[in-house]
Parts: sequence; C-alpha cells; structure tokens
Amino acid sequence: MKFARTRLPGPDGDVARLVVVDTDGDRVVDLATAERLRLQGRGASERRAREVALTTFPGSLAAALGTGEEFLDAVGRALDARGDDASAPLDGPDWLASVDAPLLRDCSAFEEHLVGYHERLGLEMNMGHFEMPAYYKTSPSRLIGHGAEVPWPHYTDYLDYELELGFVVGKVGRDLDPEAAESLLFGVTIFNDFSARDIQAPEMRLGLGPTKSKDFASALGPWVTTIDELDVRALEMIARVNGEEWSRGSSSSMIWTPGELVAYISQGDELHAGDVIGSGTAPRGSALELGRKLSPGDQVELEVTGVGVLRNVVGPKQPAGWRPPKKEPKIFGKARA
Amino acid sequence: MKFARTRLPGPDGDVARLVVVDTDGDRVVDLATAERLRLQGRGASERRAREVALTTFPGSLAAALGTGEEFLDAVGRALDARGDDASAPLDGPDWLASVDAPLLRDCSAFEEHLVGYHERLGLEMNMGHFEMPAYYKTSPSRLIGHGAEVPWPHYTDYLDYELELGFVVGKVGRDLDPEAAESLLFGVTIFNDFSARDIQAPEMRLGLGPTKSKDFASALGPWVTTIDELDVRALEMIARVNGEEWSRGSSSSMIWTPGELVAYISQGDELHAGDVIGSGTAPRGSALELGRKLSPGDQVELEVTGVGVLRNVVGPKQPAGWRPPKKEPKIFGKARA
Repeated sequence: MKFARTRLPGPDGDVARLVVVDTDGDRVVDLATAERLRLQGRGASERRAREVALTTFPGSLAAALGTGEEFLDAVGRALDARGDDASAPLDGPDWLASVDAPLLRDCSAFEEHLVGYHERLGLEMNMGHFEMPAYYKTSPSRLIGHGAEVPWPHYTDYLDYELELGFVVGKVGRDLDPEAAESLLFGVTIFNDFSARDIQAPEMRLGLGPTKSKDFASALGPWVTTIDELDVRALEMIARVNGEEWSRGSSSSMIWTPGELVAYISQGDELHAGDVIGSGTAPRGSALELGRKLSPGDQVELEVTGVGVLRNVVGPKQPAGWRPPKKEPKIFGKARA
Repeated sequence: MKFARTRLPGPDGDVARLVVVDTDGDRVVDLATAERLRLQGRGASERRAREVALTTFPGSLAAALGTGEEFLDAVGRALDARGDDASAPLDGPDWLASVDAPLLRDCSAFEEHLVGYHERLGLEMNMGHFEMPAYYKTSPSRLIGHGAEVPWPHYTDYLDYELELGFVVGKVGRDLDPEAAESLLFGVTIFNDFSARDIQAPEMRLGLGPTKSKDFASALGPWVTTIDELDVRALEMIARVNGEEWSRGSSSSMIWTPGELVAYISQGDELHAGDVIGSGTAPRGSALELGRKLSPGDQVELEVTGVGVLRNVVGPKQPAGWRPPKKEPKIFGKARA
C-alpha cells in the first residue's frame, strides 16, 4: 500500500490530507473523506463523522502512524466501505512531503559514496565508518514534497542532490536489536538530501556535523510504500537530471542493513512513529562524485523501484543575506605564539 | 516571569501542566486552572471553561509560545484574576523539562571549552570555529527536567555534564540579522548537555557530528526566565557536583552573541516557538576539562544567576545492549593496497 500527503484549500487556509495512492488505477483516495462517508453510512451525524474521521486520519502521517497497528486496520475499513467514493485522479494533487517526520536522521551507509565524497571534499576518510553507522539530523522545518521547488540558499554557489532511501518508522522503540528494529519499519519513501557542497567540508571539519550544508531542503516523496511490498535490501535507485541518467545504485550495497541502522539509532535514544532514517547516498548518487553541478531550473528526478519517482526543480539563488563576521581568537594559538 | 512544566496524575495517566513560578512567594501557579476559574467567573460553563483554558495553556510550552505575543497577555489576565486561587507550594511539583523543545540545537560558543575539549579528546582544533558558529542537534526524545535521574547508557564508561545556557525561541523566524534574531528570544533556561566522552571523539572524527555521545539525556530546567529579567551577556554560570563547585563561568565570554547564534541558525532554515539553542559549554564547564569523571549516584547542580538551580542525579549504568558488528571495507584502502 502507498500513502501520501496532499494539500487542499479550506476556509481557514490550506490543510494537509492523508491519501492512499492507487498507482494501478491512477487514483488517490482521501482517507478522511472515505472514513466520514463510512461513518455516516452507519448512522453517524455529519458533524461527528467528520470529527472522528479527521482524528483517525489527520493530515499528519506521523500522527496517524502513532496509532500503531490499528492504523492499517482503520485504513482497510475506510477503503473497503467508501474508497471509490473518496477518490480523485492521481495527476491532480498538490503533494506535500510524504511524511511530516518529527525527526529525520541521515546515515551514510553506502561505502562507495563515503569514499567518493571524502575524496572530492578533501576530507580524511576514517575506518570508524565500518565500526558504527554515523548519522546527522537535518531540520524538520525544511521538508518538501514531490513537485516542490528547491530553495537555493544565498550562502552557497554549489547546490547538489543526493539519491537516498528514507526508511519510515511506524512505532515507538528504544534499545532494540536489529531483528526487533526491523519490525519498527513501516515503509520506504524516496529522500533527496539536497546539499550545499561549498560549505559542507568547512562545516564537517568542525566536528559537530553538517548544518547549513543540509538544513535548507529535504525532499520526501512522492509517497511511502509499505514494507510488505518491497525487498528493502534489493531496491534499484536511479537519479536523472533534466531527463538524463546521472546515478544508479542498489540498496544491496549498503554497509549496514536497515535493521542495523534502526537498532543503532535506538541505543540510548528513542524512535517515534513518522521518524525518517536516510540510508545515505547511493554509489555515485550525487553530482559531486561525478564532478558535475546543478543549476537553477534543473529538474532532478529520483526513482526507486517499487516506490516511484520524486521530482523537484531547482529554484533561483536567493538574494544575499546575513553572514557571520569573523571573530578574533583570544586563547587559541596564543600560547604557541 | 518564570515558566515551568510539571506533571500531575489524571484519570487517563499523567498530564503535563504549564505553571508560572513565583520564587519570591515560593509558589507555583497552574495556568490552566487560573484561566478556568477566571472564565467561570465570567459566566462560562465549567466544561467550556476547561476546554478553552487547556487550549490557551496546554502542557506544552512550545505550543503555548506558538500563540505569539498574545501568550503573555493571556498569562497576565489569568494571573491577575485568579493566580492566587490556582497556586501551590514551590517545593511540591514533579518537574518536567522546562521546554518540550521541538528541536534542540547546541552551539559551541565558549572558546575556552572549545580549546579544552579538543585537547582532552585528541581532536584537532580548527580556525573555522571563529568564522561560523558550528552546532549539532540532539534528540528531542531525551529531554529531562529538574530532579530527574540521568540515564547512563550501556555503551559508555565515561559520563559527563556540560554547563550551558538554553536560549528559548518564542516566535517563528528565518533569514534574520542578529538584531531581528535577538527579538525572537523568549527566555533562558539551564541546559545540562550530558555527554558520553569515550564515544564522542570517535563519533566526531566521522564528520557527521555527535549522536550516541549526546542523544541519551538533555536536562532543561528548572524553569524558563523571560528575557526582560536578564542581561543575557552577563549571566554567571556555576556547576557543583555533590555540593562542591567544579565549574564557574559567565556568558560574557561567548564568541558569538545570542543574536548572532539565532541569526546564523535562521539562514536557509526556520526557527519555531519552543526551539532551544544551547550556548555551548562554559569555560571548564565539564568534568572532562578538569580531568575528572562522574559516578553513578553523583548529584550535579547547574546554577545560572537569574534563572535558578537545575539538579539531577546520575543513574546506574544500564545493562549491556546491542552493539554494531564491525564491517569489512570492500573499496576503501583496496586501491592503495
């Protein structure tokens, strides 16, 4: 099954809607509408049916997944009863990020990309990458969906894409082993971890991880395919820029299994429904590794077999903004001078 | 004014409550109760008064701050009308993290700590720290409050404290200059960034920033003092372990002003009400820099003038858990061999 989030206008502004995507029938089903119709068919008042339907199927996939295993049962009931009556054409929606992830942790689980970006950015590769799966957290304020324009921040001249899988967590969990961890996975979405390359190496040399080089845009979409429909260790991944294939890889070459990634993250920490875990970039899954660059207006498509195609267009560079002034060290270097 | 969050039992489990702390009168005022009484005094039904009061003053400070400038006006109305009737002794509450921060970004804005921890951890210090304020994001699942026990994760033998300020954001903002950024600050809380030192250097060498070394516990409390009551550039900071003073510093020695930190974070990214920005650790504000260690049962107190004292006790080391197996590189090093 495939879940997505769309945007609809309402009397108090746009609202997010949770939909099921039927790629065979080229339809999307609005779950709250199907559930409202189902409840009304069982004698509920319109007002109460709307209230309950919007609680069961809010615009937040994270909130809906928080219902646990009950969620898919509720989806089944709504679709069976009134799915057809609540459906619309697949090419219509204004897509939001497929998951409103409370937290997006991004790993780096493809060795070829690890080696490649370290070389290109002039960073020293470290054997520790084979002893623990390093990851950083991006800003959950900057999630965008299929079709959205990618904002080009004022502080970078080198915008890049990254071809990644997004593993979507379906339940709360902590201190898990890989087997238990794998059972937390609800589905897979496509993740384009847009990056500002000229600021990434200076940031990473400071040891606290990437921030400005990553936090401006993370595309998730077009939808989330549930884990039962996929072999997560054999997903083909392709990136195209303006229709030309630039990158191709497979999840089979990951250093760490999805279960190992989730298990590692869960140690001492807690995972929640809707959290997304990025796989890291597929081999040669970025322009950086190919010695190429993106330009404003470029169309970037990421395709993953069994999931779909996530398409975004790179926006114009934003006008100059504030930059931090250089500070004078008061201690560092003084003792040695 | 001082705001905190406490825990009260209810018919459906514990609930979080938003309170105002009166340190002169040694009282805490439950805001939802004061507002409910005020509304009932104006002819509201009990049910409707409760509904509106809990919407105006939910247990989430982040949600309440999301109301913007209206929030403090509503607090004033509730306190003026029925503050006394909704108050209880200050020594009673079960404290939660003072802010349920959607995102906690932690900077490293004290030069002496930067130099000190690089030396102690055997990491190379970089001049880039004087060109941009580096920061990482911790796990918002692991916030704890005043009085809470600090969980000691199974994977570390070296638990440490960090004496920090937590700047609490009161409004949404992006792409700000330092002056506009400073106006986003609602208040200051005390932040103990508990750290696992033996895993921190190996993690930081991987370039993606600290995760397991930080994500297991972040204490915020005991409350948030509003910015109008403080001179944020002259806050005295003290750490005591089992009653003995270990660390002392002042916000006056920060490399970056709070306004510069907020402005930098806002570039290309978005700040939200309730987000917390850590100052970084005060000079010699950790056991690491003193060549000391914490033990289970140690009581750690952080004091900041004008805010209060945040006290936590270090818990016992947790039983062994899963650790990632070492992987064999397939590419890295092969070409050179």
